Amino acid sequence: MANRSLWAWGTVDRFPDDAARRRLAGMARMLTGGVEATLLPLPRDEDARVPEPRVAAPASLAAMASAEPRDRALHAHGRAYPDLVRGFRGDFAAAPDVVLRPASAAGVAACLDWCSAAHVACVPFGGGTSVVGGVEVAADRRGAFAGVASLDLERLDTLHEVDAASLAVRAGAGFRGPALERALGEHGLTLRHYPQSFEHSTLGGWIATRAGGHFATGPTHIDDFVESITAVTPRGVVSTRRLPASGAGPAPERLWIGSEGALGVITEAWMRVQHKPRFRASASVKFKTTLAGAMAARALVQAGLRPANCRLLDPAECLLHQVALDGTAVLLVAFESVDHDQGPALARALELVRDHGGAVASGPTIVTEGDEAGGAGEAGTWKKAFVDAPYLQSALVSIGVMADTFETACTWDRFDAFHAAVTTAAQDALRRTVGGGLVACRFTHVYPDGPAPYYTFIGPARVGDELAVWREVKGAVSEALHAAGGTITHHHAVGRTHRPWYDRERPALFGDVLRAAKQTLDPAGILNPGVLVD
Amino acid sequence: MANRSLWAWGTVDRFPDDAARRRLAGMARMLTGGVEATLLPLPRDEDARVPEPRVAAPASLAAMASAEPRDRALHAHGRAYPDLVRGFRGDFAAAPDVVLRPASAAGVAACLDWCSAAHVACVPFGGGTSVVGGVEVAADRRGAFAGVASLDLERLDTLHEVDAASLAVRAGAGFRGPALERALGEHGLTLRHYPQSFEHSTLGGWIATRAGGHFATGPTHIDDFVESITAVTPRGVVSTRRLPASGAGPAPERLWIGSEGALGVITEAWMRVQHKPRFRASASVKFKTTLAGAMAARALVQAGLRPANCRLLDPAECLLHQVALDGTAVLLVAFESVDHDQGPALARALELVRDHGGAVASGPTIVTEGDEAGGAGEAGTWKKAFVDAPYLQSALVSIGVMADTFETACTWDRFDAFHAAVTTAAQDALRRTVGGGLVACRFTHVYPDGPAPYYTFIGPARVGDELAVWREVKGAVSEALHAAGGTITHHHAVGRTHRPWYDRERPALFGDVLRAAKQTLDPAGILNPGVLVD
Repeated sequence: MANRSLWAWGTVDRFPDDAARRRLAGMARMLTGGVEATLLPLPRDEDARVPEPRVAAPASLAAMASAEPRDRALHAHGRAYPDLVRGFRGDFAAAPDVVLRPASAAGVAACLDWCSAAHVACVPFGGGTSVVGGVEVAADRRGAFAGVASLDLERLDTLHEVDAASLAVRAGAGFRGPALERALGEHGLTLRHYPQSFEHSTLGGWIATRAGGHFATGPTHIDDFVESITAVTPRGVVSTRRLPASGAGPAPERLWIGSEGALGVITEAWMRVQHKPRFRASASVKFKTTLAGAMAARALVQAGLRPANCRLLDPAECLLHQVALDGTAVLLVAFESVDHDQGPALARALELVRDHGGAVASGPTIVTEGDEAGGAGEAGTWKKAFVDAPYLQSALVSIGVMADTFETACTWDRFDAFHAAVTTAAQDALRRTVGGGLVACRFTHVYPDGPAPYYTFIGPARVGDELAVWREVKGAVSEALHAAGGTITHHHAVGRTHRPWYDRERPALFGDVLRAAKQTLDPAGILNPGVLVD
Repeated sequence: MANRSLWAWGTVDRFPDDAARRRLAGMARMLTGGVEATLLPLPRDEDARVPEPRVAAPASLAAMASAEPRDRALHAHGRAYPDLVRGFRGDFAAAPDVVLRPASAAGVAACLDWCSAAHVACVPFGGGTSVVGGVEVAADRRGAFAGVASLDLERLDTLHEVDAASLAVRAGAGFRGPALERALGEHGLTLRHYPQSFEHSTLGGWIATRAGGHFATGPTHIDDFVESITAVTPRGVVSTRRLPASGAGPAPERLWIGSEGALGVITEAWMRVQHKPRFRASASVKFKTTLAGAMAARALVQAGLRPANCRLLDPAECLLHQVALDGTAVLLVAFESVDHDQGPALARALELVRDHGGAVASGPTIVTEGDEAGGAGEAGTWKKAFVDAPYLQSALVSIGVMADTFETACTWDRFDAFHAAVTTAAQDALRRTVGGGLVACRFTHVYPDGPAPYYTFIGPARVGDELAVWREVKGAVSEALHAAGGTITHHHAVGRTHRPWYDRERPALFGDVLRAAKQTLDPAGILNPGVLVD
């Protein structure tokens, strides 16, 4: 964490320098037709305002506890737009009173025992990359507790077992993406789960938030890779049996996948892994309209093709990522395999996209027995942008620009009206609040029964009033996507930000069941209060 | 139900005639090395002993209620071995007091209201094909209720909506397999979910029991096809949102998939459907040993191939289904696609199986643009046997032979020891109880992290003492597969038969959560008592 930015995404050394911020300002002006982007002075760590702690860890936990202000500030927020804004202002009022770093499941249990007994809210903390307020107890709720502890699981980063026969590993929940991939790489294996937060987020966080990976189809969600989990709850340890599949009652692991720290602390998991892919085939295809591209993407998945990438970028998204500047929509298609040539799959995909009016813009690029993805053309441009995007969002905040994303999924029959309603709601809200801005859309995932559209909006920030503006825009788009039949989140999780819409999306009686589950597992109600249920 | 056998599998007209029973007796003698199979007199319906009902439906439910003894007898049991034995004896002591057939979700709610108020146990009933005691309240538990109602959902068989764009349909839970496929066929669609019970079991039953379909990989489990469900609980209706995917908290539908009637009555579901496959490629491959075949099956799925069929038959299973008589193991491999030629996939699969010592015995058979599966060779022989097997089990009971199956899943690293332990336990138990018999194994499903082995055991019945013998064998094999790291059920469900091992397999705290869920949704505890939790 030493190198981690106190307020911005990721590490300090990767934050764009002034020259890059100036280029970004020029680009923001161009994209939004006149945003007043100016380089604001960057916050200094020494100006961070961190409140005095209300509670201290007991002596029994002293060895794993930290009350150091910088450490607490680093655990104050996730990395949502409002988090960046507050961090940029030096506002760390939400900092926990203490950071606990247990090194074992027994240590986690000891932390939960203390929190339950002392009525200290306990917030499990992985990479701190939540974009939905997942790691911050709301101000109006903190008073109900003696204090707040951030339970940082970074020490649980052991690769305990490798089962090469079953292609599965038992790994600690605290592994960050790159460290886990390095450890697996020594065995020629990969988890092949690449959320955009990959560099900083953790295995436990992925499971707790039902993270979505980078790949468009096939095994990509963390759900797909979980073979079994171990979670520590205030009432004891839960360990599900290692099984490739089971039909024995409702799937137990499913209660904790997506439980967001409210029903237990995931300490380790058996994860399905893979050999590294060696065969690849990719192309990019242009369409006159986003809808034409959407119909082509639908045709691919309904034909039973399983592209690793099937990312449709609308014209604004193409502009944003400099993939195409001519007002077309672009579909990036790629296939990967550990075992066999993907040329035939791509050839069939290209037949289908041509049937839907697509024109191949680059590729096909076929890689056999390669080590790395073909990074050529639009796909390569886009991939770099994917990894850097969170840094850019932080940099935009630092030049007075509001930039955020939201994502969802809906069935194909609704998509056309859904997309129009959501885009209109976003544009209207931007116009109403800040005079206008850019709204862009891409598909991150496609399913036979519907796409997962992912939206980006960019507009001028109203400096000093950023949070109110953002709340209005976020509220408007959330309302629109709920009303139009989407889900409030396909892979960003619920956290605290999405709770009002989640509460309406979820069947009321399932809410009652979750409350009963919470009461059963966490009788003192100390685990991540405000998440999932009240 | 008019034509349904009171005691045996399926319909009366399909029950093997005396000539067929004689052939079966000869085969049983051959397979088991001397079972004393003799044609016992078949039971007559008029000899069925059905107790007087303890409770009657109120006037408000009279239009949907039946207290007719034959109707009640048809709802007394599933079709497990002990069910067949008791039915064969004319023992219908387990018959419910009343059969209710609501025609709508509101009707289901009215039934639950009465049952809750009158403390009548309510057993949701689909096709009555449970092989795990799923539809019968245990004798020692009936006294705690004023009576038992069987809630037969057969009237909920409407295809409400077809969404051709998203390839999804909204269908009533009471649809039996053939009727649902006929209704879908009119739209050129198929659910493509074929459990062995397909002809008699229902959509709602498949969801409630997490049914496994016939296909070895890819979408095959009912879990894969559920887009959303509607269930009626004593506390109201639960409807999950139609979504291709969501990351919003723990998946709500997962609480009801596998809930076995204990947490609500599934009345309808949005199901993902498909266009009918037109491309097929298949072959059968012989191996010297079961383990060699298992390693080949593992190689196929770990290579990312997704065969529709990847069914490994051990030598005894080959004998049983007359697929091969030379002591080899046979792997049936087939690929299917709605869109593109499966020849290349099969070609690669055959390279892989040859690398593992397999010899192609028949095929490859390639079908393009065909309407029906290539039914040639061992695969065709096997498919017919698959559909007829439940009839044969009933017929075996009628000639004094004990025959049953059990199934599981385990990770690949355990498979060799697992298979040896389970087979030995089954053979020992047969030897101990009835002097010996046949134990056969096949893989029904294969996953990258493990297979789903499915076992058949056949031995002489100790007439008059069938149930005690069966309990001893069933207990021994269940104990062995639990101890060796498998699941007590991969797709037969838990019911009442598997409860002791399920209770040990499931994390204790998850059991507590299920109890809390049950208390929340079914406060009077009337729904299928004895299933999942106490």
